[in-house]
Amino acid sequence: MTQMNRRIVLASRPQTAVSPDNFRLEQTPLATLGDGQFRVRNHYLSIDPYMRGRMNDAKSYAEPLAIGDVMIGATVGEVVESKHPSFVVGDKVTGMFGWQDYDTSDGVGVRKVDDALVPLTAYLGVAGMPGVTAWYGLNKIIAPQSGQTIVVSAASGAVGSVVGQLAKLAGCRAVGIAGGEQKCRYVVEELGFDACVDYKAGNLYPALKAATPDGVDGYFENVGGESFDATLSRMNPFGRIALCGMIAGYDGQPVPLKQPSIILTMRLLVQGFIVTEHLDVWPEALGALTRLVAQKKLKFRECVADGLERAPEALIGLLHGQNFGKQLVKIA
Amino acid sequence: MTQMNRRIVLASRPQTAVSPDNFRLEQTPLATLGDGQFRVRNHYLSIDPYMRGRMNDAKSYAEPLAIGDVMIGATVGEVVESKHPSFVVGDKVTGMFGWQDYDTSDGVGVRKVDDALVPLTAYLGVAGMPGVTAWYGLNKIIAPQSGQTIVVSAASGAVGSVVGQLAKLAGCRAVGIAGGEQKCRYVVEELGFDACVDYKAGNLYPALKAATPDGVDGYFENVGGESFDATLSRMNPFGRIALCGMIAGYDGQPVPLKQPSIILTMRLLVQGFIVTEHLDVWPEALGALTRLVAQKKLKFRECVADGLERAPEALIGLLHGQNFGKQLVKIA
Repeated sequence: MTQMNRRIVLASRPQTAVSPDNFRLEQTPLATLGDGQFRVRNHYLSIDPYMRGRMNDAKSYAEPLAIGDVMIGATVGEVVESKHPSFVVGDKVTGMFGWQDYDTSDGVGVRKVDDALVPLTAYLGVAGMPGVTAWYGLNKIIAPQSGQTIVVSAASGAVGSVVGQLAKLAGCRAVGIAGGEQKCRYVVEELGFDACVDYKAGNLYPALKAATPDGVDGYFENVGGESFDATLSRMNPFGRIALCGMIAGYDGQPVPLKQPSIILTMRLLVQGFIVTEHLDVWPEALGALTRLVAQKKLKFRECVADGLERAPEALIGLLHGQNFGKQLVKIA
Repeated sequence: MTQMNRRIVLASRPQTAVSPDNFRLEQTPLATLGDGQFRVRNHYLSIDPYMRGRMNDAKSYAEPLAIGDVMIGATVGEVVESKHPSFVVGDKVTGMFGWQDYDTSDGVGVRKVDDALVPLTAYLGVAGMPGVTAWYGLNKIIAPQSGQTIVVSAASGAVGSVVGQLAKLAGCRAVGIAGGEQKCRYVVEELGFDACVDYKAGNLYPALKAATPDGVDGYFENVGGESFDATLSRMNPFGRIALCGMIAGYDGQPVPLKQPSIILTMRLLVQGFIVTEHLDVWPEALGALTRLVAQKKLKFRECVADGLERAPEALIGLLHGQNFGKQLVKIA
């Protein structure tokens, strides 16, 4: 009997919000391994906001997915079959193996990981792409100095939680913005931020003002929209804004920035970035992050959907802020 | 008979658009000179967009003017009386001597200028603050490379005209945005830009798209509003935007930026700046600009209102784009 691979492909492009119809679960026979290839069994899939952008047929930083393509995504898994000289059965690996049970690889872009040091899933979050994103934006763009105030939106999420904790380790005042009392409590009580503002409470600007009595020197933007407007109004002269995500705009509607003139009046630097374009910093960042996790200096929280077939609803929930912590899908 | 000084003070703050009521012409006796002081007779006053911001009582990069203060402004003039060891009667000088016939000074912030090299008024424009603004934003923020496309708004103005000419000298494609056919023709035919888009013609985006077939690598923003939105949509990956002015927003109404997510998707750098905070570059910039003017490699155009009492209407006209070239007021 041929062994089958389950995979989720892009069935259609969302016109506005993503819906389950935009995906299709398929089964195909496993590909035959060629020389120099190995097969990975995916254990966990990472669900990330950038996936929304790839579903559009629009000018962006990456090629859009074609209709029928397997949905893109980072996974952690295990080598289950190998004709590759340096990957052997049993190796734990992480790579862009997509929304599927199995993938084959020649090793390019694949990293072996050690699940004795930190849990395997951490390599999809705090010790993976989201962690490096936080590290890069904070250290290379915001460049915080001790005593400064750093604000981060989506503060309980995979990237935001790392930004705030690294800012605290750098001697800064860390202020989060998150949706709901429960997330805010987690951000302050568990992650150790100095304050967290609940954007769902309906008083974002006054609450942010109260939480940032000395203004804001650095802002790590994961969301866009109201958070961006409110924080921009609190920026100190020569502040830096690392622009990492604009979730609020991913569902088709562009979200304007109300007062761009503040960028001029406060002489701000705003830098958009995509962490995969800065591969030179990954070894340093991953080393630092993995050490901090192993030392329990960086905490993280995961939100796991059980089963590959749940991936579409996990992404839809993420885009609506329904996840609490790093969103994963358990595949095996 | 006591000799009198005419001066224009801020009479009231504009609620929305500036009106002549916001100013008052006063006469006061000339101050007595102290030791180490000299008196300047202003010949020309420079009218600049930043003046609008100083009339508000709002958080910005500079202290607002108080009601009753003499309107701030750069002038060129001549020393007519001196008790200062290094400024003598007859010296030509430029400094922030304001909207008035005379001012006294101890020499701080005052620069002697040579009107044999270039005309005196050039030190208020191409060889003064507007020129340095262009030089700084282009060279220090946009950092153009030969063959790249540079767009500048308010292209026929004091700053914009220098940005485009310097971009051409650097081997770039220079594209202006200006208001009206006459200004656009001047920008292309006289200043040598490759193209100029008339934002008043009602088809800004398609015209800009046609004028920038290879996209836009650097944008020097003097205006804000529609020009900013249109150019942002044409930016290439890793483009740089020097944010120098937001005239469209100066009249009270914040002008939103429609698609800030492009800063992320194109990984742009946006940097607001105020050239007076970068005094370290002034000697180099002024030297280069003055040389280029003397060599006739930098052209400029002036628009002169005759008489101090005309200064308010000159500023109001500037804020509505009615000037054509560097706006000056001839005082004496």
